[in-house]
Amino acid sequence: MQWNVYLSGEIHTDWREQIEQGAKELGLPVTFTSAVTDHDSSDAAGDHLMDNDNQFWRDHQSSKVNSIRTKNLIEKCDIAVVRFGDKYKQWNAAFDAGQLAALGKPYITLHDENIIHPLKEVDAAAMAWAKTPQQVVEVLKYVITV
Amino acid sequence: MQWNVYLSGEIHTDWREQIEQGAKELGLPVTFTSAVTDHDSSDAAGDHLMDNDNQFWRDHQSSKVNSIRTKNLIEKCDIAVVRFGDKYKQWNAAFDAGQLAALGKPYITLHDENIIHPLKEVDAAAMAWAKTPQQVVEVLKYVITV
Amino acid sequence: MQWNVYLSGEIHTDWREQIEQGAKELGLPVTFTSAVTDHDSSDAAGDHLMDNDNQFWRDHQSSKVNSIRTKNLIEKCDIAVVRFGDKYKQWNAAFDAGQLAALGKPYITLHDENIIHPLKEVDAAAMAWAKTPQQVVEVLKYVITV
Amino acid sequence: MQWNVYLSGEIHTDWREQIEQGAKELGLPVTFTSAVTDHDSSDAAGDHLMDNDNQFWRDHQSSKVNSIRTKNLIEKCDIAVVRFGDKYKQWNAAFDAGQLAALGKPYITLHDENIIHPLKEVDAAAMAWAKTPQQVVEVLKYVITV
Amino acid sequence: MQWNVYLSGEIHTDWREQIEQGAKELGLPVTFTSAVTDHDSSDAAGDHLMDNDNQFWRDHQSSKVNSIRTKNLIEKCDIAVVRFGDKYKQWNAAFDAGQLAALGKPYITLHDENIIHPLKEVDAAAMAWAKTPQQVVEVLKYVITV
Amino acid sequence: MQWNVYLSGEIHTDWREQIEQGAKELGLPVTFTSAVTDHDSSDAAGDHLMDNDNQFWRDHQSSKVNSIRTKNLIEKCDIAVVRFGDKYKQWNAAFDAGQLAALGKPYITLHDENIIHPLKEVDAAAMAWAKTPQQVVEVLKYVITV
Amino acid sequence: MQWNVYLSGEIHTDWREQIEQGAKELGLPVTFTSAVTDHDSSDAAGDHLMDNDNQFWRDHQSSKVNSIRTKNLIEKCDIAVVRFGDKYKQWNAAFDAGQLAALGKPYITLHDENIIHPLKEVDAAAMAWAKTPQQVVEVLKYVITV
Amino acid sequence: MQWNVYLSGEIHTDWREQIEQGAKELGLPVTFTSAVTDHDSSDAAGDHLMDNDNQFWRDHQSSKVNSIRTKNLIEKCDIAVVRFGDKYKQWNAAFDAGQLAALGKPYITLHDENIIHPLKEVDAAAMAWAKTPQQVVEVLKYVITV
Repeated sequence: MQWNVYLSGEIHTDWREQIEQGAKELGLPVTFTSAVTDHDSSDAAGDHLMDNDNQFWRDHQSSKVNSIRTKNLIEKCDIAVVRFGDKYKQWNAAFDAGQLAALGKPYITLHDENIIHPLKEVDAAAMAWAKTPQQVVEVLKYVITV
Repeated sequence: MQWNVYLSGEIHTDWREQIEQGAKELGLPVTFTSAVTDHDSSDAAGDHLMDNDNQFWRDHQSSKVNSIRTKNLIEKCDIAVVRFGDKYKQWNAAFDAGQLAALGKPYITLHDENIIHPLKEVDAAAMAWAKTPQQVVEVLKYVITV
Repeated sequence: MQWNVYLSGEIHTDWREQIEQGAKELGLPVTFTSAVTDHDSSDAAGDHLMDNDNQFWRDHQSSKVNSIRTKNLIEKCDIAVVRFGDKYKQWNAAFDAGQLAALGKPYITLHDENIIHPLKEVDAAAMAWAKTPQQVVEVLKYVITV
Repeated sequence: MQWNVYLSGEIHTDWREQIEQGAKELGLPVTFTSAVTDHDSSDAAGDHLMDNDNQFWRDHQSSKVNSIRTKNLIEKCDIAVVRFGDKYKQWNAAFDAGQLAALGKPYITLHDENIIHPLKEVDAAAMAWAKTPQQVVEVLKYVITV
Repeated sequence: MQWNVYLSGEIHTDWREQIEQGAKELGLPVTFTSAVTDHDSSDAAGDHLMDNDNQFWRDHQSSKVNSIRTKNLIEKCDIAVVRFGDKYKQWNAAFDAGQLAALGKPYITLHDENIIHPLKEVDAAAMAWAKTPQQVVEVLKYVITV
Repeated sequence: MQWNVYLSGEIHTDWREQIEQGAKELGLPVTFTSAVTDHDSSDAAGDHLMDNDNQFWRDHQSSKVNSIRTKNLIEKCDIAVVRFGDKYKQWNAAFDAGQLAALGKPYITLHDENIIHPLKEVDAAAMAWAKTPQQVVEVLKYVITV
Repeated sequence: MQWNVYLSGEIHTDWREQIEQGAKELGLPVTFTSAVTDHDSSDAAGDHLMDNDNQFWRDHQSSKVNSIRTKNLIEKCDIAVVRFGDKYKQWNAAFDAGQLAALGKPYITLHDENIIHPLKEVDAAAMAWAKTPQQVVEVLKYVITV
Repeated sequence: MQWNVYLSGEIHTDWREQIEQGAKELGLPVTFTSAVTDHDSSDAAGDHLMDNDNQFWRDHQSSKVNSIRTKNLIEKCDIAVVRFGDKYKQWNAAFDAGQLAALGKPYITLHDENIIHPLKEVDAAAMAWAKTPQQVVEVLKYVITV
């Protein structure tokens, strides 16, 4: 069985690469998917459809285009990893986690100890909390191959 | 028909009271529900079950108790309002929005103009964005009674 | 048992009133619901939220506000009547019918003989085709009270 | 991942071919599906089963045969494109859009600017509005491959 | 709690009355529902909509009108009783049983011993097999009130 | 796309072979599935588990074993054909049709003209009625390949 | 809002009465439901339908009758409490918990500290673990009324 | 068609190997899956994430990690076998059975005659009860290949 793992959240560090590399070294039968992680492309995802002077509608248009991808990938994943980093609001990551929870998809959170409290609702519905990408790889290895 | 409206998010300003007061003055057939909004009670929701030295598990225990309430109320609501304020991480509000989206529940976001960009995914799945509680009341009035 | 009947479609003739009057005279245990049927109000449903120069986004904003109401009413109805009249495109009526079909809600179409062919897909998924409001009332009477 | 894209609506112009050609040139991993697009075949889909003098039942019989195909394809698609052209009522396209919305399938509308208003409900539930097949191809490219 | 009990099948004996009378004598909190049980009315359910020379379409039209009622009642019932008698094909009763099974609704079959074998699939998905209306009443009493 | 077609009902004539042969000659991308069609094997499906003196429980035990197969095949099919012949009660075929209807699976009935009336509910929920296996093959050909 | 609370498990101590009494003293808007808790009645639930020499089928028959009640009550509850005591196998309690988990119903386990390890899977899907009926009452009070 | 068979329960005897071996000898198109069956690994599944002094949270953490695997495998299986042996509480097996029942997955129980009574609810929802792994293999053979 091939497992689909959706990687959600922070796009400014290399946590995705670390997990993918770790899984590759172990030869895990895993396919990783993500939203488009290039920040500028993501913000401009709908710009070719219609110009918008209004920032709200520009963001609206691009976010809906992005959701064509993310909705499909979230609904098809077997496991998700939701990463919260140090910067930005990251409401999209918590929004993804809410969707995963409502769809009954098991997910692992990945974040530092200092944000345990604001993430308590997101963690309560998660199946595991990891502090490092290596811990995530260990969970995947155990879940998939032992 | 009586409408159930779930009010999610910020607990440090009186936006809930403003919406409830506005709906009351108009005699709208609406029942409002919320998570427990007393911060200390909410954090201590599970403390009577077992003491925990570890902050992660204390939060975990209380959040799961809180979710007995919020999961029920979210699944029973007809409409939700999700409020994002100035302070704190507010990942729980985005998490609620994600659940609402996956369940197909129409929700209205309530937030200032300066956080349009970080909320773009949450707004893209919303049915309306309001800047003031009065605008929310107007939407409710229109949706329910015209 | 009280039956919820959703009335979808044309807003320029009095077919709704005829059905409601007919049901009332027979004392049927029926609650009728509809989208907002005042054309101008419907088009302006979201205008108080944000001004839009762009017609697409103005319509988008209002339609999403209207869908808060219609989505709820469609999901709660036991039976629907979908009316196609002589004027306008009426894609919203066909769109409602598509949602009803996908949700497994039985619906009755109400339209003249001259548009049988373009409505063939919509009729194929309907439980009955009526040509007059009186026929709809007869169906309701039979279904609910015999 | 191979993506299933359902193409719904207008059958009198070559918009399907343009999208398929565009996707092919980019090497997108996409499978396109459609209802039977030969008008006469579609109208006669059930004629071999039973002769009907009555146009209503002839259409009914053929539409139900067609729906064996379309219901399956709609339920299996990952993305849909719904095209509204200049001619005919095209209620079947709006009906497909309603089913897609109720099933939570992301879809893109493809239509000219002059019919924004009558399509406002259909567009409000869409993830993107495109004016040209080329814009649709760009959306597919972005969603699937970036 | 009020229990909804759907009574499906044979319309030529008084088994419905016996169950209803038995439940009434015990004061059980039960609401009984059924398809229209007047044979002629049922066959003519759609006749006021359109005349049909073709028997197939006459039956089709009436059966779809009847299904507006039965689909609602089946989906709303808590328990069903499906009765097979001595006469006729009674495929509609087995068809109701199939729907009940697929919807996860517990049902009780009511039939004589001599048709155990042809009903084995229908009985295998039932929660109980009763030979007399009195046994059905006993099951209802036990399930609802002990 | 490979289509799964479930063949339900009569086991005493060669209608299955005719359909399979017809599809094969046309090279249709179809996989056919069925319940176990050997009558004696089917009746004895559970006999190796436990002996039963009581005919009801022997049938019960075998029917549940058979349902492991049929429930899976019904839930996985894209299209079903439900055949009613001249002999026996054939309640299992009507029971399969009820499940197909409740699951939203399009099915075709296959039966002679003389049993239109007792099959009216089953036909009303079907997408087509065929009188011969050749007509079924034509429907499959049209639906799958045109 | 009235809350439905299903009480599952052990029938040999008065934990149900303690919770019901505690809720009553606090005036909580709660309706409690349970399986039939009289051991002999429960074992004999189907005996009036058919005598069985074989213990397996006698149990089977009664358990299916009992499930008419429990399946309904579990599907309608908002919250469940699942109690594991000192005696017997209590597989029915764990079976109820599995159903609750799969249906997404929040439940609270009630058991002593010495059986934490064998209940770890059941507890992992629970929203709270309580050691005394009084703690359950506190959770209900908090969840429902604060 | 390849069939997925989930093997749940007892880990201290070789029943899994016997079934797998029997299926292999017959060349059945079956893929078997299981929870991690090494007792120590399973108990320690989450230990690398965070140390826990409290046994409850250690078990909780490991059980949630294990559920990432089991929830996926249960939801993907076509058939399950649930084995109850002589030792331990085995509440996890009954918990799996409850999930399978609520999801509509057909399962076979495998246990000795002396525990018929405490397993009556679990057996009532099962499709077959087997006493030996060989009987399970026979059921699989019949269901899949006849």
